Amino acid sequence: LKIFALNSNEPLAEKIAAAIGIELGKCTVKQFSDGEIQVNIEESIRGADVYIIQSTSSPVNDNLMELLIMIDALKRASAKTINVVVPYYGYARQDRKARAREPITAKLVANMIEKAGANRVVALDLHASQIQGFFDIPVDHLMGAPLIADYFIEHGIKGDDVVVVSPDHGGVTRARKLAEFLNASIAIIDKRRPRANVAEVMNIIGDVNGKTCVIIDDMIDTAGTITLAANALKEAGATSVYASCTHPVLSGPALDRISDSAIEHLVVTDSINLPEERKIDKLDEISVCDLIAEAI
Amino acid sequence: LKIFALNSNEPLAEKIAAAIGIELGKCTVKQFSDGEIQVNIEESIRGADVYIIQSTSSPVNDNLMELLIMIDALKRASAKTINVVVPYYGYARQDRKARAREPITAKLVANMIEKAGANRVVALDLHASQIQGFFDIPVDHLMGAPLIADYFIEHGIKGDDVVVVSPDHGGVTRARKLAEFLNASIAIIDKRRPRANVAEVMNIIGDVNGKTCVIIDDMIDTAGTITLAANALKEAGATSVYASCTHPVLSGPALDRISDSAIEHLVVTDSINLPEERKIDKLDEISVCDLIAEAI
Ligand SMILES: Nc1ncnc2c1ncn2[C@@H]1O[C@H](COP(=O)(O)O)[C@@H](O)[C@H]1O
Ligand SMILES: Nc1ncnc2c1ncn2[C@@H]1O[C@H](COP(=O)(O)O)[C@@H](O)[C@H]1O
Repeated sequence: LKIFALNSNEPLAEKIAAAIGIELGKCTVKQFSDGEIQVNIEESIRGADVYIIQSTSSPVNDNLMELLIMIDALKRASAKTINVVVPYYGYARQDRKARAREPITAKLVANMIEKAGANRVVALDLHASQIQGFFDIPVDHLMGAPLIADYFIEHGIKGDDVVVVSPDHGGVTRARKLAEFLNASIAIIDKRRPRANVAEVMNIIGDVNGKTCVIIDDMIDTAGTITLAANALKEAGATSVYASCTHPVLSGPALDRISDSAIEHLVVTDSINLPEERKIDKLDEISVCDLIAEAI
Repeated sequence: LKIFALNSNEPLAEKIAAAIGIELGKCTVKQFSDGEIQVNIEESIRGADVYIIQSTSSPVNDNLMELLIMIDALKRASAKTINVVVPYYGYARQDRKARAREPITAKLVANMIEKAGANRVVALDLHASQIQGFFDIPVDHLMGAPLIADYFIEHGIKGDDVVVVSPDHGGVTRARKLAEFLNASIAIIDKRRPRANVAEVMNIIGDVNGKTCVIIDDMIDTAGTITLAANALKEAGATSVYASCTHPVLSGPALDRISDSAIEHLVVTDSINLPEERKIDKLDEISVCDLIAEAI
């Protein structure tokens, strides 16, 4: 068993290797002067079961190419099996043709990973579970909800006073699951645009007055929806609003929006590596290292 | 017949479409806030023979993903054939395992393009002709040498006074071809490192004293070799030194090195789009638009 970390999330890879009790394999990923990626595997892997830890988070195309080139190198160096651990799977939202002539990039990425030579994929909270079916190789699909539940239970946020809130209709199943762990009820944000060019109205389905709200989503990207939802919950009488997600994409205005919002604490996992300067006070990070170590 | 330009080289795509006498197809390639690429094809292409013009030059991974995502979208929109024109093919230097456990990224890229759904590839001066064999679909391999020859002939640089110089052993065939066009002789730079940690010595095989030298290479990247070669030629008595290449990668210190070198003029093609501020005085650009238009 050999585990290699590429550039996207070395801290998580270190923790996974420590949880399993081995050292990370020696490899370096660099760029040539023109930006082309160079992968150097600095130990023999012939006949080994090899795991690569790589989130295809931003810069998504660079991180994806690193992964593909590493798979190619391992294949040509006669690895026995190549197992790809993708804590955050980029392009997951491009999972269907919503409009004419759209690509299905989540499937393209699956094809690329498979064609490059992967034998198995370990993924975490894919934006749509259907992405498992984009692969013809085995996919282990892990869930962050139990870890997030543990965090809230440890902080005494559970029971009748708590409402788990889904920020949209698509996330109700996820909210339902967290609510079960917390013995809490659920509510749903029903986002509607009354007319074109009129701001969306955040309609809350369920009772949140006097309750502690916990919003849950699979990822937070620009944080537009979730911060509007948090503010709406507060206005509807919530005593405090927590938010949580597995994947802290946090692009563009996300951190400012979260800072300025009614969100008291945001709980995320380390599926995406956040540099220290992005870890704002409101943010609490929990690690998926044990979850992934068990799957390996 | 429909021609679409992606982001790497729109000026060339415009010229190719003009040479054929059609308008470029309407499509936009943008990035979401987190850097994921979004392709929008804004006209029907059902049943059409579609050409995509895209160099996988720097930023190579972004340009490659744009290409792959566009191919995916065209395939799902029922294009009849998808023809990929890659004036500059990135990762071409990673075409063999030179050391243990190296990837062969040029082959990986070929696999990706084919798997995404391309039916035919048009390429120009591939770093190694063998890359044609990395594909199982037809590859048209175009040559820039005749265009470069035309430039020098038009400028009166031809005949007995001229020596075409290959900057390394690998490029002799290319130099031979240009020399034939120019009715010139050839010389070869024999780069040797006498001992480890000692600067390389540029040994010139052939007579250049009192001659006009024309160095030719397929690409100029950091311009280290070619500027050392030019200076060595000048010291060996060359009256003037010209340089030429098909692909002006020109990364890192390239422009400074060329400015400071004995190179009088550098002739390149527009296979890679150079922004105006990178077109230094010494640089002359010739277009491959007609060459590619004929192949389409
Ligand atoms: N990186 C991205 N950033 C923002 N929106 C995206 C991104 N990728 C895909 N989308 C859009 O998000 C929608 C899918 O999100 P969802 O409805 O939550 O599954 C589609 O309309 C996509 O066009
Ligand atoms: N983008 C790049 N920049 C610089 N060197 C590269 C690049 N890609 C590959 N190489 C190296 O260039 C060598 C191949 O160049 P060549 O011998 O001219 O075919 C190999 O040793 C590669 O490792």
